[in-house]
This record gives sequence, C-alpha cells and structure tokens, in this order.
Amino acid sequence: MKIVLALGGNALGDSAEEQLSLVKEAAKSFVDLISDGHQLVITHGNGPQVGMINNALPTMPFPECGAMSQGYIGYHLQNAIQGELSKRRIKKEVATIVTQVVVDEKDPSFQHPTKPVGPFYSKEQSEVLSQEQGFTMVEDSGRGYRRVVPSPRPVDVVEKNTVRTLVDAGVIVITVGGGGIPVVEDGDYYMGVPAVIDKDFASAKIAELIDADYLFILTAIDRVMVNYNQPNQQALDVITVAEAKKYIDEGHFAPGSMLPKVEAAIQFVDGHPGRHSVIAALEKTKDALLGNSGTKIIA
Amino acid sequence: MKIVLALGGNALGDSAEEQLSLVKEAAKSFVDLISDGHQLVITHGNGPQVGMINNALPTMPFPECGAMSQGYIGYHLQNAIQGELSKRRIKKEVATIVTQVVVDEKDPSFQHPTKPVGPFYSKEQSEVLSQEQGFTMVEDSGRGYRRVVPSPRPVDVVEKNTVRTLVDAGVIVITVGGGGIPVVEDGDYYMGVPAVIDKDFASAKIAELIDADYLFILTAIDRVMVNYNQPNQQALDVITVAEAKKYIDEGHFAPGSMLPKVEAAIQFVDGHPGRHSVIAALEKTKDALLGNSGTKIIA
Repeated sequence: MKIVLALGGNALGDSAEEQLSLVKEAAKSFVDLISDGHQLVITHGNGPQVGMINNALPTMPFPECGAMSQGYIGYHLQNAIQGELSKRRIKKEVATIVTQVVVDEKDPSFQHPTKPVGPFYSKEQSEVLSQEQGFTMVEDSGRGYRRVVPSPRPVDVVEKNTVRTLVDAGVIVITVGGGGIPVVEDGDYYMGVPAVIDKDFASAKIAELIDADYLFILTAIDRVMVNYNQPNQQALDVITVAEAKKYIDEGHFAPGSMLPKVEAAIQFVDGHPGRHSVIAALEKTKDALLGNSGTKIIA
Repeated sequence: MKIVLALGGNALGDSAEEQLSLVKEAAKSFVDLISDGHQLVITHGNGPQVGMINNALPTMPFPECGAMSQGYIGYHLQNAIQGELSKRRIKKEVATIVTQVVVDEKDPSFQHPTKPVGPFYSKEQSEVLSQEQGFTMVEDSGRGYRRVVPSPRPVDVVEKNTVRTLVDAGVIVITVGGGGIPVVEDGDYYMGVPAVIDKDFASAKIAELIDADYLFILTAIDRVMVNYNQPNQQALDVITVAEAKKYIDEGHFAPGSMLPKVEAAIQFVDGHPGRHSVIAALEKTKDALLGNSGTKIIA
C-alpha cells in the first residue's frame, strides 16, 4: 500500500535533542510499516519549530522560515528512519524534499488572517509593525500582540513529480513539511507568501496527487470521539464521509484541533471508494492499518 | 552532459531579498545549460547563511543549523530555476534534497579545528563555552572569540541514490548544500557532528558518486591565475592534473580561497580521463563549457 503519514508538529518536542529522540521513537512505527512492504510518504507539522525560527530571525520572511523548518525537521526524520532501517537491515533511502505548496491568492482566508505566528509584541510595537510592514496584528490571550497570517487551502504541490518519482523508486519521502512553503502564481514564477497551510490538508493534497491508498493523520489519541468528555462519549471505529459530515454539522469536533483533521480525512476519500483515511495514535499506526485502532473514514 | 555546478555561499548576498534576486540571475546561466540538453546538479556554499542562523539560534546544534540553511537556500534556488524554466517553456522539475555527508571521525581535522562559526564572544564567555560545551574557542582578528570547528573531507553522501534517481528522471537536483550536513557513522545511525565540509570537496564527491562528466566550480573570476597580482600574472586555460599539482607546490593558490577549489577540481578528474573540472565565473558558465572562458583541469 502507498501510505501518507502526517505527523503533528507538537509531537516533535521543544528542542533539537528532544526532537531527535522523539523522531527516533516515531521511526519504529514507520519502519514497522516499511518492513511489511508498504511505501511511505511522511509529512509533518512545524508550528512550534517555525515559531522558534521566526522569533530568532524576526526580519526573515515567513515562507523562508518555513523552508528552514523543513530542512531542520526533515533532517531529523530522515536520519532517524535511516538508522531504524539500518538496524533492521532494510536497504532503502529516505529523502526530504524541500516542498512548495501552491495556494490561490483569491482564497478567502487572505481577507481574514487568523493564524498567529512569531513573537509577542507590545501595543506600540504592534502598531509600528502594522504600519511599516503591513502586518495584521491581533491581541493574543492577554499575553501581547502577535502577527496573524492567513491559512489558505492547498491547490497543488510544485514538486509533485519529484515525490512520485522517488516513491516509485522505493525511496521513503518526507514532503510538504509544515504544510509546505506557501506560494502563489506570479507570472512565470511562484512567489512565497506569508501564510500557514494546514499540514493535514497539505497531506491530503499530496496523497491525492500521488494516488495514495491511505492517508494517516497521526495524533495523540487512539480514536476520534463524539460527545467528547460527556457521559455518552463514543470512540469511532469506521465511519463514512456522510456520517463524518453529520458529526461535523452537529459540532462534535473542535475547530483548530480535531475538526481540520476530519475535514482533511474527508477531502482525501470523498468520491474515491478505493481510498482510506485513518486518524490514529502515532504508536498504534500498525494496529490502525489492521483495523484494531484508530478511526477509519471511507467514502 | 551530466554537470555538477558548485555555487559559492558568498554569491548569495546578505538577506533573503538579495539572495532571491541573485539566484534569479544565476538561474539564467543554469537554464542556458538545461535548454542545451544538459543534466544539472547544483550545489552551494552556506558560510554567511549558516552564520546568520547560528548567531540567531546559538543553542541550536551546528548540523541542525546547516540543515536549516539547506532548506532556506534550496527553496530560493529551486524557486528561481523553476521560474526561469517556466519563462522558457521548459517542463522540468527542480528539487532540493536535504543531504547528509559522511565524514570519518578519524579525519585529522577533528584534532585541529580551524573553521570559525557562529557569534563573537568575550574572553570570559568564551571560557565558559569552552568548559561547559566543550567548544574549541579562538581569538579572531581582534574582534573577539569564536568557536572553531573541524573541516573534514567528505567520504560518502547518504542520499546519493536519491540524487541519482532524480537525475536519471530528468529532475534538476540541489544537493550537498553548505558541503552537506556532516555526519559520522555511529552504530546503525549517522550522527550529526559540528563541522564544516568544504562545499567544493563535497561537490567533487557527489560528482564522482553520480558519475558526472563535468564539475563546475563557480567563482567571481573568469580564470585561475598563476603569479597572481605580479607582472608575470597568467590566466590558465587548460591544465593537466600534473600541472595543477606543480602550481600548488609552487604556492600559486591562496589557502581557503583558490587552493581548495583547485584541489577539489583535481580530486574529481585525477585518474579519470573522461571527466572535466572547470573553475569559472558564474555568468560565463556556458562560455566555459564551450572552452571560451574558465580554467579546465583534465586528467
């Protein structure tokens, strides 16, 4: 099976040492699937990491900070997976592709930036940044002012043929890190734009473009819940797109948390009976593929 | 022809805006070669860029800073080359591979670190870093104390099969950025080490591993000079390895500047009559391939 695995940026820890140690642990789950003969494409979030880079380099444009985070996280992932493969005497290569993801400049989110990025500023500093740099600044949880950027939907992946070529050659590919470097079409060029593409939507997009069989959205919980934290709480096993949409309408999933995961899962399988989306815990990936853990969303 | 082109980190400017503008200019030379049917692998230095990242994130391990610089510079290069290809209606993809380069932990340079990296410190700070972090610190040009790291020779490229696969598929590959992320073998794993691999030696190594026809080392001058800045100064056109070695012995080339370029050029062609190394100016790459500019080193 061709499987896209989306790893959360919050699962990567708070320092380089912690990140490397966590991805070495995650690599065991990935290599379990590889040793069973599956072809993997790994994607990841970058929220805390791009935040750290952006805080340290506040004048660096945001897309470039994202590119840096792809190099940083991708290096650890490829190093850890390569080591785990080598331990099990599996001869395969792992490669991180610096990846640009195309968004539509007419995406409505450009009119309503909501994603906070970078350092906290005082009210005065925030007004200067707003005037001089054109940043949209908002007050964030009483802790100061932060820049907000749009979160547009992915429409294409610039390096999709590279990813396909490598997957076909048996290489484990790390791509669309942090949702990808957001770019818009600008004549013959793609131009980087300050935005954050949800990594689960970007993962669904690359899964679609390489015609994957499975999209795994990895999270901290075993299964998606309805009536979460209520007496009638229920863990979901297998649901259809229609059922998932009904649960969304009923407000079961938290925006910015489970909601985008379920939406991305739907996006990948809707109208495609051969495709499967699974929302599962990282350490139970293999169980989830066998149907013994996780929530599967099917057409 | 299969051509490895090594671009200097100093040719990339001092800010993101400057870098993108400079690589858009460089992309014209690269795409001139692509439109003539050549297959390109592009490598680059990262001295000023990894310095900036390391200054901003002083607690980030040095190999991770190198990985970030590969993402940052690779994104600009692939974006600029993709745009220039699109302008000329050439349908090809460009991909940056985050690349680890293996060095030997017994390389003599580990006993004699010489490459200054990161910020300047006071004598007191430098002593603390030396004791607490084990850094080797040296006084640098009266401007303060800096950490020095070794500059070992590259022995292998971890992602070489990925590079080969993509080159064979017609993708323009950006690899071994900054000389590659330096790693040593550590059981089943590769472990990042604080070091700087000379980008020209790393370029010669990847050129050897993918069996390239040409290694281009791009610089600011048109040709290599002997008796530089003297009345009998002479620009070199075509020289053999034996002649190049004689010029080295006679002390014609400055260490840390032209000397490593000539040594890397020799390394690639020595004993291989089918291979060519060329040291040339970036904007005269096509002329140099035709023999109308640059210094060619042949076996």
